[in-house]
Amino acid sequence: MAQQAVIGVTGLGVMGRNLARNFARHGYAVAVHNRTEAKTKALMEEFGHEGDFHPAETPEAFVAALARPRKMVIMVQAGPATDAVIEEFAPLLEPGDILVDGGNAHYLDTRRREAALRERGIHFVGAGISGGEQGALEGPSIMPGGTREAYESLGPILEDIAAKVDGVPCCAYVGPDGAGHFVKMVHNGIEYADMQLIAESYDLLRKGAELAPAEIAEVFRTWNTGRLDSYLIDITAEVLSHTDQATGAPFVDVVLDRAEQKGTGRWTVQTALDLGVPVTGIAEAVFARSISGHADTRAVARELPGPSGAASSFAGDFPDKVEQALYASKVVAYAQGFHQIQAGSAEYGWDIDLGAMATIWRGGCIIRARFLDRIRSAYEADPRAATLLSDANFAAEVGAAQDSWRDVVVAATRTGIPVPGFASALSYYDALRSERLPAALVQGQRDFFGAHTYRRADRDGTYHTHWELPDRPESRVDI
Amino acid sequence: MAQQAVIGVTGLGVMGRNLARNFARHGYAVAVHNRTEAKTKALMEEFGHEGDFHPAETPEAFVAALARPRKMVIMVQAGPATDAVIEEFAPLLEPGDILVDGGNAHYLDTRRREAALRERGIHFVGAGISGGEQGALEGPSIMPGGTREAYESLGPILEDIAAKVDGVPCCAYVGPDGAGHFVKMVHNGIEYADMQLIAESYDLLRKGAELAPAEIAEVFRTWNTGRLDSYLIDITAEVLSHTDQATGAPFVDVVLDRAEQKGTGRWTVQTALDLGVPVTGIAEAVFARSISGHADTRAVARELPGPSGAASSFAGDFPDKVEQALYASKVVAYAQGFHQIQAGSAEYGWDIDLGAMATIWRGGCIIRARFLDRIRSAYEADPRAATLLSDANFAAEVGAAQDSWRDVVVAATRTGIPVPGFASALSYYDALRSERLPAALVQGQRDFFGAHTYRRADRDGTYHTHWELPDRPESRVDI
Repeated sequence: MAQQAVIGVTGLGVMGRNLARNFARHGYAVAVHNRTEAKTKALMEEFGHEGDFHPAETPEAFVAALARPRKMVIMVQAGPATDAVIEEFAPLLEPGDILVDGGNAHYLDTRRREAALRERGIHFVGAGISGGEQGALEGPSIMPGGTREAYESLGPILEDIAAKVDGVPCCAYVGPDGAGHFVKMVHNGIEYADMQLIAESYDLLRKGAELAPAEIAEVFRTWNTGRLDSYLIDITAEVLSHTDQATGAPFVDVVLDRAEQKGTGRWTVQTALDLGVPVTGIAEAVFARSISGHADTRAVARELPGPSGAASSFAGDFPDKVEQALYASKVVAYAQGFHQIQAGSAEYGWDIDLGAMATIWRGGCIIRARFLDRIRSAYEADPRAATLLSDANFAAEVGAAQDSWRDVVVAATRTGIPVPGFASALSYYDALRSERLPAALVQGQRDFFGAHTYRRADRDGTYHTHWELPDRPESRVDI
Repeated sequence: MAQQAVIGVTGLGVMGRNLARNFARHGYAVAVHNRTEAKTKALMEEFGHEGDFHPAETPEAFVAALARPRKMVIMVQAGPATDAVIEEFAPLLEPGDILVDGGNAHYLDTRRREAALRERGIHFVGAGISGGEQGALEGPSIMPGGTREAYESLGPILEDIAAKVDGVPCCAYVGPDGAGHFVKMVHNGIEYADMQLIAESYDLLRKGAELAPAEIAEVFRTWNTGRLDSYLIDITAEVLSHTDQATGAPFVDVVLDRAEQKGTGRWTVQTALDLGVPVTGIAEAVFARSISGHADTRAVARELPGPSGAASSFAGDFPDKVEQALYASKVVAYAQGFHQIQAGSAEYGWDIDLGAMATIWRGGCIIRARFLDRIRSAYEADPRAATLLSDANFAAEVGAAQDSWRDVVVAATRTGIPVPGFASALSYYDALRSERLPAALVQGQRDFFGAHTYRRADRDGTYHTHWELPDRPESRVDI
């Protein structure tokens, strides 16, 4: 047994290779395998000295190298490639073995795979892993789904290689079947929203306050010492302060302004629509990237007229106002994302601990931030809170920020700077606190044109108005 | 042959029954069938005198009553019920027969069904039908997909029973397989956006300008004599001027303010995400309904603080400003919807005539409006326009409206009235006309944390910056 590997990784692209090195650096004997052997050899040559690697040329040799119950991590492209690898390895495994998918699978695929492998007695763990190449090597945030039984033997190893914050690992059991990949998906959706809000902040400071990129980098560095302290703010300052070597221009000015995307933001919004959860911040972020990429449309639309009104003032404490708008909008984006996790958990019976999710996002992942400690505290105080916005601390902070938030949206509106993220978050905030919403009118319209019925605010029942009759009598239709 | 029916309808719910009556009223001998015979009998008893109905008790008798090539319309619930009816009838049909699904099927289901039936030689026509009960009876807007061959014999009948505007039928061939249901889906998505914008207009006049519902009804009546002339504006005035008989209060005040939805708006957004088309107006509308329905969240969020700043002025010509905001936002919503049809047409090779779609929406359907004539003209002038917003007329109108549009968003922002539709449409407009978007920063962030690469504005190629190295050199990675 001493000759055997504690865990294995198949798929030695940059993420898989770094994850294997992370296991090895933590003292685990790790089996490594890749469909084409060259990558296995390259890993051994470059990094073989880092730990106890067991290179395997074939799936059979790989599985034979693993101690029982076997624990192996698949690190290949999400989609058909993952299914192909599962089909290749599953017949070689035995009941009780643990097969981990560390890719960005859609949680519904994970549910399907978990159900199929459960029938064969194999534990399938869909584990969201965030942090990119560097995180995989130095400590990612890990979101593993699957059975509790699998987590009992697998979890300690994952917690060992995960990032740590205040000594607490950024890895915790999420819930059954697709729960881990679901939470990872929402994590990515929140990441889209967060990046869009940062981009709008930059745009306002650039076009509105007319600061240079290097000056804006300094503003972000200042923000990074306060409540916005986070990886994304940090790297934004790095990107903004970078000078393009070829032209001597600010780097951000030479990059083509068409944002790309890989699909998890889109999945988050599509899933939220199915769950009936309003994730306007994530949707606006996904669409903002999409707008930026429509070069043909932008080419003809650049000629459209802009505002003729008086310019707004961006002088004085404008950057501070942007900080407040960014913070308040960010709270809304996270409130929406956590609402989606709560709804997914209820829909699939996952019983996800929301505070634990905030805890494991504090380090390792792209959205890691000091701010997540506040979310953890909020859910520890009230694990079933209907919205993060009603937490006393967040409510007070957002309440204090809102006048500046409104000032920023007003300034952007007056000068024609697009702020889909800020404006949408503010509308969400204002809608939630509205005593009455014009949804009542919408229900009236729907009843008029489609006899879709409505409910009344003053008594129970479902009603329809006979709009086609002169005196428009009302009928109760649920009796 | 004189004894036979020209067309048949199975599924005699209110939509199917009215469609059958519409055929009969236009002089077509129409076979009618329902799974439970009671509905067939009820139709014959109540409306049998209206025309030449051929009631059938069984699918076999129904099919036997139809002249060849048989033309039958299925009017049942979208989803499994439609599949069940197809499976029941298809074996009774012969090559060349035409099976029409007049329900709200998802266009991907229609594509699947069309492909399966094509193999059996049967023409499957997915036909979007809009206009509700009244439209089905008096003239709906019809969006039929399928083969051109099927349209040649079926089309004239559908055009006959469709609504007419200036003598032109609100029915035209859309394109192959799922094209008809796709266009109907986007129609419904636009309907969501339009209703949301009207709801925001009402909310601003009510909470901002402090007009009573009956006064607002008069404002809408005035608008309905101008460029906003449309069915939805018309019925909004009707709903707002209605007084609840039980309480004497304005009807809109007794309706529970939680808007419901049936799913086609959600499908539109989900599909747009897959196609990479930004439909922010439809998304915000779907989410606004969703927000209104989250009673628990709203209950705790009602306590959140509102703006402490100075109140905005809603006096004077504020209603006129709202009209301009509504018109401009509406143009954006339609531009987004038509963009989606254009993208769907390209994706599936449907070759949809966008001007024809505007033409057949002018009457019969929920979004019927004078305004659609302008869209028809725009696409007649430039069938491949990248965006409706670049049409000279729309550009001029929106340009003229924008200062008021901005005033309205500013007033709402200052007073805390949610305007997700107006604000999102304005951000879309401002993003499209931006010379540079902060998407460049997003690309820089993505390259920093995930080595996702970027393109440059000044030369071709794909690049990556080695952010981990002190001097941050750039590599071209596509060579």
